[in-house]
Amino acid sequence: MPPTAVPPSPGASSLPAAWQDLFTRLNTVAACSDAKILLQDTLTLVCELCGAEYGVMYEYRPEVQEVVCRVRQGNLPDNIGVCLPVGGGLLAEQVTSPGVRFYPDLQAEPDWQSTPGFALYTEAKSMLVVPFTRNGELVAVGEIFDPQEMPLDQIAFVSARLSTEIHKAFLLMQGWRDNARLQALIAIIGELSSTLDRDRLLRLLINYAAELLNAEASSLFLVDEKTGELVLHLASNWQEVPVEKVRVPPGKGIIGETVSTGQPVLVSQAAMDGRHYPKVDLKSGFVTRSVLAVPLRTQELTLGKGMGRQEERIIGGLEALNKRQGDFTQQDARMLELLARQAATILSVADLYADANELFLDVIQALVASIDAKDPYTEGHSRRVSEFSVAIARELGMPPEFIHQVRIGSLLHDVGKIGVPDSILKKPERLTEEEFSRMKEHPAIGGAIMRQVRLLEHILPAIEEHHERLDGRGYPHGLTDEQISLLGRIVAVADVFDALTSDRPYREGWSAEEALSYLHDHMGEHFSPSCVQALTRAYVTGKIRTQKERDTLQRAEKEAPNPSQD
Amino acid sequence: MPPTAVPPSPGASSLPAAWQDLFTRLNTVAACSDAKILLQDTLTLVCELCGAEYGVMYEYRPEVQEVVCRVRQGNLPDNIGVCLPVGGGLLAEQVTSPGVRFYPDLQAEPDWQSTPGFALYTEAKSMLVVPFTRNGELVAVGEIFDPQEMPLDQIAFVSARLSTEIHKAFLLMQGWRDNARLQALIAIIGELSSTLDRDRLLRLLINYAAELLNAEASSLFLVDEKTGELVLHLASNWQEVPVEKVRVPPGKGIIGETVSTGQPVLVSQAAMDGRHYPKVDLKSGFVTRSVLAVPLRTQELTLGKGMGRQEERIIGGLEALNKRQGDFTQQDARMLELLARQAATILSVADLYADANELFLDVIQALVASIDAKDPYTEGHSRRVSEFSVAIARELGMPPEFIHQVRIGSLLHDVGKIGVPDSILKKPERLTEEEFSRMKEHPAIGGAIMRQVRLLEHILPAIEEHHERLDGRGYPHGLTDEQISLLGRIVAVADVFDALTSDRPYREGWSAEEALSYLHDHMGEHFSPSCVQALTRAYVTGKIRTQKERDTLQRAEKEAPNPSQD
Repeated sequence: MPPTAVPPSPGASSLPAAWQDLFTRLNTVAACSDAKILLQDTLTLVCELCGAEYGVMYEYRPEVQEVVCRVRQGNLPDNIGVCLPVGGGLLAEQVTSPGVRFYPDLQAEPDWQSTPGFALYTEAKSMLVVPFTRNGELVAVGEIFDPQEMPLDQIAFVSARLSTEIHKAFLLMQGWRDNARLQALIAIIGELSSTLDRDRLLRLLINYAAELLNAEASSLFLVDEKTGELVLHLASNWQEVPVEKVRVPPGKGIIGETVSTGQPVLVSQAAMDGRHYPKVDLKSGFVTRSVLAVPLRTQELTLGKGMGRQEERIIGGLEALNKRQGDFTQQDARMLELLARQAATILSVADLYADANELFLDVIQALVASIDAKDPYTEGHSRRVSEFSVAIARELGMPPEFIHQVRIGSLLHDVGKIGVPDSILKKPERLTEEEFSRMKEHPAIGGAIMRQVRLLEHILPAIEEHHERLDGRGYPHGLTDEQISLLGRIVAVADVFDALTSDRPYREGWSAEEALSYLHDHMGEHFSPSCVQALTRAYVTGKIRTQKERDTLQRAEKEAPNPSQD
Repeated sequence: MPPTAVPPSPGASSLPAAWQDLFTRLNTVAACSDAKILLQDTLTLVCELCGAEYGVMYEYRPEVQEVVCRVRQGNLPDNIGVCLPVGGGLLAEQVTSPGVRFYPDLQAEPDWQSTPGFALYTEAKSMLVVPFTRNGELVAVGEIFDPQEMPLDQIAFVSARLSTEIHKAFLLMQGWRDNARLQALIAIIGELSSTLDRDRLLRLLINYAAELLNAEASSLFLVDEKTGELVLHLASNWQEVPVEKVRVPPGKGIIGETVSTGQPVLVSQAAMDGRHYPKVDLKSGFVTRSVLAVPLRTQELTLGKGMGRQEERIIGGLEALNKRQGDFTQQDARMLELLARQAATILSVADLYADANELFLDVIQALVASIDAKDPYTEGHSRRVSEFSVAIARELGMPPEFIHQVRIGSLLHDVGKIGVPDSILKKPERLTEEEFSRMKEHPAIGGAIMRQVRLLEHILPAIEEHHERLDGRGYPHGLTDEQISLLGRIVAVADVFDALTSDRPYREGWSAEEALSYLHDHMGEHFSPSCVQALTRAYVTGKIRTQKERDTLQRAEKEAPNPSQD
């Protein structure tokens, strides 16, 4: 059965046709959920009802008692987005008691010049102010210039019909903006957390902080654990600031307050705020207007596999400076806190990772040094071979991962000597054939030791192949040319260069020039030409020094009069 | 000058009083921006206009052609939040051609029983359907049961006035919900990134994924690099699933599609979808209805300080299963992708950190083993002392960081032997006084080597104090009682226990019982009583074994017939 005709409703009169038309038009305008279009259509409609050519409409922001220009009608100057205080002008009364008001002679109004809109249309003769309210509170306000007629009932109808729509559209705009910021924040966090490089992380952080909050600049202070001072670590957009000189005593300044209380601090007029620490501005030349400061709070992670204890700690503070439009809001504070907390966590992970790397490198350096030290003539040998090898790899333009492999591999190249008897290692005279064949076992012994370390597989050639020769007359395997890995070829050159330039019981160390010339003479047959050339370049450009050159330099420094003692 | 009286507007008639009252009331209802309250007030008003006692109002979701019950009027069963297909019932026509429709005899309507609302009020006689539309599209729909009158003009007026408000309120509700979810996501990311423990991280991930998407369960697959299969790694809310047995061939299933294409996959009826891989359900006993699958995409980080290359890689996939209300949406997919991407990044950082730790531990283990190996009688000594020391520290109830220090410190306790001549280390006979005094230097040599490693400062006592005695007759410093650190006291006990239970050239190794009895006899004077007791507890509870017990076990295993060969 189809739905039947609806029985007529008793006592209901129809809406008059003129009102029905306006109502229909309003419903069409109201269908829009974009605040700007909705305001524009509203203003156009009101101007039309009033026969006016010019008008402007503002959003009212109760939390800061400001209006923001949103749309205009007619050929007025572009003022969109500008925030203006309601102040003492003709709009002031709308805040406390909103109502349609007509000013027939603007030029005679003393408050006209302090009214938002004055600068847009100074020659206006009269003005109709139309408030849009929700539950008696101002939401938006329109200024209609030089109206020809004023159908007040209809204007009130328009205002009542659209005020709540405009209010929701503002909420939506705010919601979408927050949403976009949260999504931006998540993208920023993603970018930050794929970085384990502390410096890059901090630089990204301050740039993103300024961007996210639409601030002119941002700065990051870290607590100096010894003095408790806050040290300016990085700042964006500050021209040539010697940042390392900017230190704030504990608890001082806005940054000091956020760090000591753990709470965000919002300041709209820094110059007039007692907490502002002007020395930072003086040193940096930056003029701080508004500030939002939040603590850098992190869970302290502990090194090692256990990873038990986690304590919260404030390691510094993050500031956003000079919001480009209006003042920093509570919403800004929450956003910056989220960013700061996440950044602090990533920072502590990066530190932990850096510690783990430092630990690894330091331990092998210490152990390898102690192996070298068994023979006084090879003291420091492995460290120097590592420096020379890294210099060769750099000259060859190798990527950072390979440089890292070279650093570790070359440092460990003689680790197999741990298995060679002291009597052979330390023997001042030339070795017998038998002793020499024991000595020649060290690449294999080193390989056997380090093969147990799964993650060092790729550096084994540095240990096992650094005594191979391109012509196949090396040991232990007699590999030739490309059979020898690049790692092995690099370390072979660096190893011989250090051996030749260091003193031995039976001869003095050669000069770098003599050693390089020896390496050149044996290129192709013993040494990789590209590695020898790379080493030469590194030497002539001053990137490396031989052991004897270092000793000479050190002696010279010791003997030179110390200027600070004069 | 105060604003003057506004001149009367020609040709504008006033809105009739009855309409003005309704309009004012509608403006009051419209002021609300909470969708639920707005709908409730709207329904109450319409029921009032119709003299009806019962009514219900639905949100219409065009993307899934479903209505969701939002509010009800009168004493009807609670159906709030339930999603219903518009289907073939009396509301179906509203979607294609919305309009107020009256059904005077519901019981005679064949489609009534398939109409949302039927189950709420089966005894309804008649029903007025009131659509709320925006730009001709259905936004919400009200069912008014048994209306007494039908003022259609006014109902149309109400619908037109409030439809756009309701639409904006729905958008706001969605925006706030998205906002809350993004904030939840940020909190989740914060929690995830403070974890470097891979297992804990993955467990948190799947639990949060299900929570964030309001899904019944979630599961995580990781790519097996050897076979390319997707291995179910973890699943939430699956009862006792032997997860390790669930493997999906490459490219198979919904998870295989997301991993191979890198795109999210949404499936509302898994059973009817050709891509669904039912073997997973069969093995797990879980019945999959709806699925949202996203790839786990990560930037591959490289070990080491350089950290140059970063490549994107898909390491697995994350699934949310059985959305509790309705189907998964594109918004859900974006949210899960954000979570997956962030989790994958954190995962690769955690792996990198684990690698750095493994590397460190493996290298010192390898080097220390090579030092022990200089004397065949001390092979494996440092590793065993480390095991015994850790067991003692655990029995003493020490925290994980300390356990970690004990592990490293005890492993390195004899590192100073690197500086003791082989002739002394390997000498099978008893040492001369002079040789012994050289031997006694090893704690100091070890301390000197390891003091160069800044981050190992706290483990130095394990090296320097493991030959001290409580009575002050130890070496090198003759410290007494509390002067000896706990670390030193632990390693002293573990060291002697291993020395006594290992074979020596001049005697066979003692049994554990003999060694423990020796330690007990020298408690207080040589050894820390609490450490000896802790070691004893660890031994009697089977947590540790001596070198000889291990050898015996190994021999027994070798000699035992292998059952798999039968």
